Amino acid sequence: MSTMVFYNGPIYTLDPEQPVVRALAIRHGRIIALGSEGRVQASVAGQRGETINLRGRALVPGLTDAHVHIIQQGLTLREVNLAGITSLKDAQRLIAERAATLPPDAWLRGSGWNHLAWGQSWPTRADLDAVCPDRPVVLTRKDGHSLWVNSRALALAGVTATTPHPEGGQIQRNRNGEPTGILIETAMELVRAVVPPLSEEERLDALRAALREALSYGLTSVHVVPGPNHATGPEVLRDLQTLRARGELSLRALVYFAPPDLEGVIHMGLRSGFGDPWLRLGGLKLFADGSLGSESAEMLSHYEGRRHVGIATIEPEVLDATIRYANSHGICVAVHAIGDAANRKVLQALEHALADREALGEAAPPLALPNRIEHVQVIHPKDLPRLAELGVIASMQPIHCTSDIEAAEALWGARCAYAYAWRSILESGATLAFGSDAPVESMNPWLGIHAAVTRQRPNGWPEEGWYAEQCLSVEEALRAYCCGPALASGEAQCKGQLQIGALADFTVLTGDPFRSKPYELHALTAAMTIVGGKVQFE
Amino acid sequence: MSTMVFYNGPIYTLDPEQPVVRALAIRHGRIIALGSEGRVQASVAGQRGETINLRGRALVPGLTDAHVHIIQQGLTLREVNLAGITSLKDAQRLIAERAATLPPDAWLRGSGWNHLAWGQSWPTRADLDAVCPDRPVVLTRKDGHSLWVNSRALALAGVTATTPHPEGGQIQRNRNGEPTGILIETAMELVRAVVPPLSEEERLDALRAALREALSYGLTSVHVVPGPNHATGPEVLRDLQTLRARGELSLRALVYFAPPDLEGVIHMGLRSGFGDPWLRLGGLKLFADGSLGSESAEMLSHYEGRRHVGIATIEPEVLDATIRYANSHGICVAVHAIGDAANRKVLQALEHALADREALGEAAPPLALPNRIEHVQVIHPKDLPRLAELGVIASMQPIHCTSDIEAAEALWGARCAYAYAWRSILESGATLAFGSDAPVESMNPWLGIHAAVTRQRPNGWPEEGWYAEQCLSVEEALRAYCCGPALASGEAQCKGQLQIGALADFTVLTGDPFRSKPYELHALTAAMTIVGGKVQFE
Repeated sequence: MSTMVFYNGPIYTLDPEQPVVRALAIRHGRIIALGSEGRVQASVAGQRGETINLRGRALVPGLTDAHVHIIQQGLTLREVNLAGITSLKDAQRLIAERAATLPPDAWLRGSGWNHLAWGQSWPTRADLDAVCPDRPVVLTRKDGHSLWVNSRALALAGVTATTPHPEGGQIQRNRNGEPTGILIETAMELVRAVVPPLSEEERLDALRAALREALSYGLTSVHVVPGPNHATGPEVLRDLQTLRARGELSLRALVYFAPPDLEGVIHMGLRSGFGDPWLRLGGLKLFADGSLGSESAEMLSHYEGRRHVGIATIEPEVLDATIRYANSHGICVAVHAIGDAANRKVLQALEHALADREALGEAAPPLALPNRIEHVQVIHPKDLPRLAELGVIASMQPIHCTSDIEAAEALWGARCAYAYAWRSILESGATLAFGSDAPVESMNPWLGIHAAVTRQRPNGWPEEGWYAEQCLSVEEALRAYCCGPALASGEAQCKGQLQIGALADFTVLTGDPFRSKPYELHALTAAMTIVGGKVQFE
Repeated sequence: MSTMVFYNGPIYTLDPEQPVVRALAIRHGRIIALGSEGRVQASVAGQRGETINLRGRALVPGLTDAHVHIIQQGLTLREVNLAGITSLKDAQRLIAERAATLPPDAWLRGSGWNHLAWGQSWPTRADLDAVCPDRPVVLTRKDGHSLWVNSRALALAGVTATTPHPEGGQIQRNRNGEPTGILIETAMELVRAVVPPLSEEERLDALRAALREALSYGLTSVHVVPGPNHATGPEVLRDLQTLRARGELSLRALVYFAPPDLEGVIHMGLRSGFGDPWLRLGGLKLFADGSLGSESAEMLSHYEGRRHVGIATIEPEVLDATIRYANSHGICVAVHAIGDAANRKVLQALEHALADREALGEAAPPLALPNRIEHVQVIHPKDLPRLAELGVIASMQPIHCTSDIEAAEALWGARCAYAYAWRSILESGATLAFGSDAPVESMNPWLGIHAAVTRQRPNGWPEEGWYAEQCLSVEEALRAYCCGPALASGEAQCKGQLQIGALADFTVLTGDPFRSKPYELHALTAAMTIVGGKVQFE
């Protein structure tokens, strides 16, 4: 492999020692020189290779999406995508159109719907039956925490007025006790269990599409997490290995697994971090609560104007025991917690797990990756310092903030002062690792950076930024997409900053984020993305 | 990391393109230059670094022990080691000496005994009771396929005249039906189940000792396989990760697992080869039969002068189904097969597994490592060509051949013409991967190379070599310790031969194997061993 030199552009290293350089050289997949053009050229003198003129375009470290459902993201390109649809009528039209294109008996799948964007009431199976009576329809809500299905799907799943609510879930019912067609949390499994599984080639195609999309934004790594239905776990790790064996793994993946795999991993003697820089085992993904939009995020006090506090999707004793058990075997956890009550419970359990390890001293098994909380959407100010104290990564998705403004204000009220509290979390000393939660939101990290810097939607609303005191600088936001995830994956020594010896993972942008106006940030994207020294997107 | 240049010595690359060079340079853990001293010096001109004068000593690629029970090997340094003991009296003396040093109630553990070296009759519990009546004694036979225990151990395990033989094993009994103290194959578990487990630090100490020993011979990689009792599986992988986290993993390991882990690995979506160049997941270790010395290797015709054909330790249907199941999930197998009947059954199953894969074509999951048969000690000439036809690695241990001469002649007779048939196997086009089976035999690969080249013991017996037509050349034997294991671990592109870009794993020897007399080969050892560019032994 020959040497490549990139020159004539601002190169933002995120390394505090030399934050901006003019040129960079790579060889054998690593960075071998950084500095002025003269110095870098001199250091590779006599080596064969190519030179790439950045022509003033900015080069930044490769970004990581620290929370993505990668196969599902790829599938949104193949299924009905209701993201951004603002009326039930439009949703029905898209569904009818897709239904007409499918073979008889095929399931109509889709996702992305958000009834809060259509008014406050939940849709029903009757709304689906009206446009698609014959074939089963199954549509996942944008947050992944509820399903909207038609009568045919309920019939195939055998869900009737007499079906009991499963533990940790709810079958929405009308006044007569009939299911309405909305299934929340674990109740989603009732229908999902009868949906035919995807074939391997369907999954691989979805993965390929998602990886291509990721590279086009300048992402060079992903942290893949199982969704609430455990849909991505074994398959995604298997499929990523298949792509790799076929020479198609174009970016790096850290893969978290769901509880059904915990015993096997422990018995096998595997620990978090096992693998190589392309494909590594993360840790155990757990769920402590539901979501804001489904009103199932667990809160310390009731939702505004409601009589409930959301749903704890796991018993606190089980949460506590599972985290301690995993950590005691060298396996880190990534726990979904949205509500302030859920966050408190998770921090409590993480505190116990840390105490266990401290009691063991040197005999504690190595924990190659830190524990993390996924989302941390609203945290009680008393709990805020505990993230840093316990060394817990705050894995957050900035676009959730600007998407959720209306719902958060309606359901959380004054508690929004502690919601999506990036600046407070950074100032508490904790590490932020940013991601997209795609397909819940777009995988585009520049939408996330824009949201983090402005707390506005791309249309500029709200004008002053929503709770603007929580805005980040461009550098802080970029660090949360580069350095934070590298810490979270235990790879800070070779990823996140451009340094000599680091992996040659970076991206050349269409513009310069450090010279852009904040309102322009969402329009940035990659002109060229390099992973392991190879141009994977251009 | 700086550049290191090794010069002034014959450097045997095992690369047919340039088999011998004078100098070699490494950097960042890889080989960056090879050739004449002038060329290598020129290619690193201007780079900081050190130079090492080989002073005529030979440098060869790092060797791999392709079959080792690594923790058990380390334990032999801590337990009673009866290897090489030639009389029951001497064994009893060593046992009595060790018994006197142990705390009350502590188990006396040991291994390495071989009653065939004391005459033909099996030892008994009475022989142990005579020197150690109070504490339990458990001694593993050198082949790992039977246990010799005293009355106290039998009592603690509750093994009496009425205990039934477990499936796949045998409790040796006297005329009155009383257990004699010898437990064969799965019957070993009856006592092992009550032996207190080792602590983590005891296991880590054993591992450290074994790794130090391996480096001292010039070994830079090991393929770790679970023994018949599945004793090394989860623990060894866990412990190797612990050593690695502590910066003490000094050589590379490929780790095979036992059947209890198969479901977990498959459910998790893991495949053979997952990991990195330091620690990788191998495949499933299976056992098709027992051993020659325990007369439990499964033969096509009865043992000489006996009425039995040995023991199939797995039902052929289960063997077949398990291999096909593992391969269909991208998991390779390493199947212990000593007798000609066992080898035939394994080849049959591997043929079915290959047919399954061929039927699937491109849809077959990638198999990153080839399947292998462990030991292949005696193979029917009709079956010989099938190893190469099916792409199966013959994982063999040359020292078994010279150790087993008397037993093989006594028990297999004329079938010895097809026993340890290295040359026939090589000429059939199959790949040999050599190892030690330590602690069954010494881990020293130079004893193995000596045995492979001479088919004599170090004392020169038998004078003409045993079935000398099966002798290998030094180069062939060294390839079987370097290139064969690299093929077996799916790493032929970066290991086994010294080439530009390959891992900087090699050893400087105390002499030159290519200029030594064959009878001197067993006395060679490492003067310096480099793994990943770092001097790990000197």
